[in-house]
Amino acid sequence: MSSKKPSIPSGFRDFGPQVMQGRKFIMQQIENAFLRFGFQAIETPSIENLNTLLGKYGTEGDQLIFKILNNGDFLAKVDDKTLQLRNSNDLLPTISEKGLRYDLTVPMARFVSMNRHALPMPFKRYQMQPVWRADRPQKGRYREFWQCDADIVGTTSIYTDIELLHLYDMAFANLKLPVIIRFNHRQIFNSLLASLTTENQLRFMQLIDKFDKIGNEVSTLLQNEIGAAAVSIWNLITQANELTNNQEKFNFLKSKNTFSPELIDEMDTLLSFCENSTNNIQLDFTLARGLSYYTGTIYEVIPSPAALPAGFNIGSIGGGGRYDNLTSLFGFNEGGQGVGISFGLDRIYDCMEAANLLNFNQSKEIHVLICAMDSINLTSAYSPCQQLRNAQINSELYPAATKLRKMLDFANLKNCSHAIILGQNEIESQIASVKDLQTGNQTQIPFNKLSSHFNEIR
Amino acid sequence: MSSKKPSIPSGFRDFGPQVMQGRKFIMQQIENAFLRFGFQAIETPSIENLNTLLGKYGTEGDQLIFKILNNGDFLAKVDDKTLQLRNSNDLLPTISEKGLRYDLTVPMARFVSMNRHALPMPFKRYQMQPVWRADRPQKGRYREFWQCDADIVGTTSIYTDIELLHLYDMAFANLKLPVIIRFNHRQIFNSLLASLTTENQLRFMQLIDKFDKIGNEVSTLLQNEIGAAAVSIWNLITQANELTNNQEKFNFLKSKNTFSPELIDEMDTLLSFCENSTNNIQLDFTLARGLSYYTGTIYEVIPSPAALPAGFNIGSIGGGGRYDNLTSLFGFNEGGQGVGISFGLDRIYDCMEAANLLNFNQSKEIHVLICAMDSINLTSAYSPCQQLRNAQINSELYPAATKLRKMLDFANLKNCSHAIILGQNEIESQIASVKDLQTGNQTQIPFNKLSSHFNEIR
Repeated sequence: MSSKKPSIPSGFRDFGPQVMQGRKFIMQQIENAFLRFGFQAIETPSIENLNTLLGKYGTEGDQLIFKILNNGDFLAKVDDKTLQLRNSNDLLPTISEKGLRYDLTVPMARFVSMNRHALPMPFKRYQMQPVWRADRPQKGRYREFWQCDADIVGTTSIYTDIELLHLYDMAFANLKLPVIIRFNHRQIFNSLLASLTTENQLRFMQLIDKFDKIGNEVSTLLQNEIGAAAVSIWNLITQANELTNNQEKFNFLKSKNTFSPELIDEMDTLLSFCENSTNNIQLDFTLARGLSYYTGTIYEVIPSPAALPAGFNIGSIGGGGRYDNLTSLFGFNEGGQGVGISFGLDRIYDCMEAANLLNFNQSKEIHVLICAMDSINLTSAYSPCQQLRNAQINSELYPAATKLRKMLDFANLKNCSHAIILGQNEIESQIASVKDLQTGNQTQIPFNKLSSHFNEIR
Repeated sequence: MSSKKPSIPSGFRDFGPQVMQGRKFIMQQIENAFLRFGFQAIETPSIENLNTLLGKYGTEGDQLIFKILNNGDFLAKVDDKTLQLRNSNDLLPTISEKGLRYDLTVPMARFVSMNRHALPMPFKRYQMQPVWRADRPQKGRYREFWQCDADIVGTTSIYTDIELLHLYDMAFANLKLPVIIRFNHRQIFNSLLASLTTENQLRFMQLIDKFDKIGNEVSTLLQNEIGAAAVSIWNLITQANELTNNQEKFNFLKSKNTFSPELIDEMDTLLSFCENSTNNIQLDFTLARGLSYYTGTIYEVIPSPAALPAGFNIGSIGGGGRYDNLTSLFGFNEGGQGVGISFGLDRIYDCMEAANLLNFNQSKEIHVLICAMDSINLTSAYSPCQQLRNAQINSELYPAATKLRKMLDFANLKNCSHAIILGQNEIESQIASVKDLQTGNQTQIPFNKLSSHFNEIR
């Protein structure tokens, strides 16, 4: 047996009790919002066939998929020639057939393709699971991280797009993390960029995607790489963006451009539902989002800078959009239209922590530690502990009679709300000393009233 | 892009909405029990260094670990000679450094070894995560399955062993799945088998481990492989086991054998806490459990045959025991004593389903589908939907005006509790038709009373 100093691979993390409390809280709030909107949970396996995953995320994405070595004698099927060439890419398909999930979207598309006849359509699914990417680890970027996705597949109704904006709004309201929910519509680009070649349209969106990072340098890049036409479209966009409200912004662009009646109708409906939200739902014409499969509305969520310490910069904590046909990836051309959003759990955690929103001490749940003093038999102390549990109160017995100081330190480390201190006197009188660990106050409660005491104060 | 018929690898599973509802219910009940007893959540990464995993599960276990291919040009570091030998085992360490978690026990031992100074000791941790084994798939055996583990590390107190028996009892009581919680003590074997060689002691435990499967044939095997001494010990065990209560069983063995005062003391304390449980906590001297690291109490949970259809056979749905020093695996020889149990989520699900305990229709949560008739604008229907959500009522709008029959079928598939049917009349009068989908009753509720209506009946 090895006795090497243990470690975990770079880019991976252990989550201890305190971090888990925050993560569970965040997941619970997001899940509550999913359920409130009628989404249903699914889970897909961590391991997919490589032919399900490869070719869906671009060449770079394919490189980042963790591949699993075939079990047993994986070299048995390899021919000598392939081996002699020493080319990892050529050898790969023979020694690895499976890989780890890279996101939740492709597995969802596969799941819907395989089960579409048994699902309620339009299918509203949520999925909260880890994904894996062999990316270079850095601040805020991990090799194992959680996505929390909600998609509505099988409809083109604009009311489902609206619903996702409201879902974002409710989830972050639940979390009490103020955010800006930015949205845009890909067909606005289609219309504005109609005079450019398809290649330049794509390049335009890639360049303006950098706006958050490089600011108005975008303009120079557009001039150099595409030309004056691109710059004047960009100027129009930024002018519109500077207006104060969503409707004005859209009206401005509408006055300068010819949009289809369908697009105007969709936008008007969308805009009519962006008021009265908890968070700022902001039409932002500079939002492009790189992913090529988006065809309609697109979304991105960033934390409100005001809620975070100066200099804290984490990028987007959620994003999504409408797509025309995801299931066509798997040969099914019908019913694959949909719209979806994702919550980045790990970055949301980092924001919540930075904004000091994960301090659970104030609304402390009852958690009782029973401390048995040296003099007594633990058996007499275990019984009240089990009584409390049966009354649905979280409690535990420190499993050895030891110094009170040591037991109270333990209670403190575990964030217990109360300690019950039992010595010979307490056992004889059947009256316990109950110490409130927040206030330090100590009260005397008869053993047979302990359950009702804690049930009253919780 | 591939348009091949999609599939998932053998031994892996998708979980659709209905199965997820059952799985979440089971996990919630088990987690409630963990929290009630003061356990704290941790999570460890899915991917561990292979040197953390290998050598911990025996040769067969090592074979069953899913290995991850190094990223990039994994052949670069391989020397020509190794490649020419075409030996998969020799090549493996150079092309794979990481593997998927095989259980939750070894990662927990690694975690405790790395973080022991920051943890409240004794450390009570729970962990609910999937594990992966490249086993041959068969009924009830999957390649990805969930373990739900609770361990108490850093103490030898018998009260922690008792606690785990009670934890099993409470969790299965929460689930309403009647079980038999069998337990035994390895030191009873040590004492009974003292006259045998160490090798024969081990063989004895391996053979009697088969008792559940082969019954009294065990006796023949013991005679043939070890001899008459083993058979007479076996007879003693089975005689004791036939007695009706735990204390009588132990007294019988005690009268035939010399146990240490410490063992007698531990057993007496344990036995004094096995009464008044919801489930049958049963001392069973035929219980041996294969794992070599157990040194004290051992546990195994099976569903009560009476709760399941005749012929349903699934083996154990939980197990565990006391160990002396798990962290010594990682070079830390102090504080690694502990005791732990595991719940097998997937098999518990299979039992609950077979016992018809996953029928959630009767205690249906409120889930409202808003159905807009052809004549009206969906905008008028979206508003009441959003109102209900803001009042914390799960609701959704069918995102197209279509035939009522189709919308009600959808509501049925999604297990909705109510439908609100909105046509021109309802919009004009601002009074909705609310249909209870269980009783079929239809009532008229003014729009502005919808939230309070549903809040009252839930």
